[in-house]
Amino acid sequence: MGQEKQHKTKGLVAVFTGNGKGKTTASLGLAFRALGHEHRVCIIQFIKGSWKYGEMETAKKFAPLLDFHVMGRGFTWKSDDLEKDKKVALEAWAFAKEVIEANQYAMVILDELTYLPHYKMIDEQEILSVLKNKPEEQHVVITGRYASDDLIELADLVTEMVEIKHPYNSGVKAQKGFEF
Amino acid sequence: MGQEKQHKTKGLVAVFTGNGKGKTTASLGLAFRALGHEHRVCIIQFIKGSWKYGEMETAKKFAPLLDFHVMGRGFTWKSDDLEKDKKVALEAWAFAKEVIEANQYAMVILDELTYLPHYKMIDEQEILSVLKNKPEEQHVVITGRYASDDLIELADLVTEMVEIKHPYNSGVKAQKGFEF
Repeated sequence: MGQEKQHKTKGLVAVFTGNGKGKTTASLGLAFRALGHEHRVCIIQFIKGSWKYGEMETAKKFAPLLDFHVMGRGFTWKSDDLEKDKKVALEAWAFAKEVIEANQYAMVILDELTYLPHYKMIDEQEILSVLKNKPEEQHVVITGRYASDDLIELADLVTEMVEIKHPYNSGVKAQKGFEF
Repeated sequence: MGQEKQHKTKGLVAVFTGNGKGKTTASLGLAFRALGHEHRVCIIQFIKGSWKYGEMETAKKFAPLLDFHVMGRGFTWKSDDLEKDKKVALEAWAFAKEVIEANQYAMVILDELTYLPHYKMIDEQEILSVLKNKPEEQHVVITGRYASDDLIELADLVTEMVEIKHPYNSGVKAQKGFEF
């Protein structure tokens, strides 16, 4: 019994937050690691357009081990049509919830999820409840600015990416193969 | 002329530093992105054993686009044989310098390089000079704690990964497919 327990994976809730670069990138790196073990990974992108050509192409190479879903709308979730934004956000979250509960993946990455509760598109208690009751061996990785105190409290691992220096500040444009 | 300039990539020097998780992982994510563009990537690991099974296996899938080199010795570079440590560090750096200057890769990742100057294994001015004179279109990514002020000054992008919460602190062991 003790032995069985030893071999069992404890699924972690990891949060990459803060204003610095590297949040989504770090989650990608975790996917890279898990895929090396032939673990199934599901990436759900809550902000449309935040993922670019490079990682999309790489992701395709890992099919069917890696599933990639683009949900949601543009960057800010602050269009003129607030009701529509909210509807899309709720649908995206409902999908993520299903994916987590179906327990078909060793790792589920919820990229930029934090913007949804931050912009009051969904009730964070709903998210916290799903995370609390997630399948035991499943890793869930959440990225995005503005991680709430409650989310940080619930998570096992939290890293804040702090921007010390950003190339845009010195007038350098986004570079292919690096930024996208 | 102006048009040609527009299409040229400006290679960035990126630094992921700080005490939090996600430094090496973020660099892996950048590799993931670059590989999606079919760009060649070289990862040089300066601390033996810091990369684990998962990413090694994934890296193999990207051969020959991705080259992976394990240099150096154990974690701290502080064995009983300081002279030997120094020799190994110098050889590792000499190799990295050659790789950068040969300009065969769109991206060179120097994983955990910062420990070498920090532990006085090599002169940081030597590193800074190579970075300053690197091929113009090449991205160089450096990870590790203790990035110096001079390195931060030289870099285009610097993110400090700050540990807010770590699973080991609450007694959770490293998990397969996540930590390694």
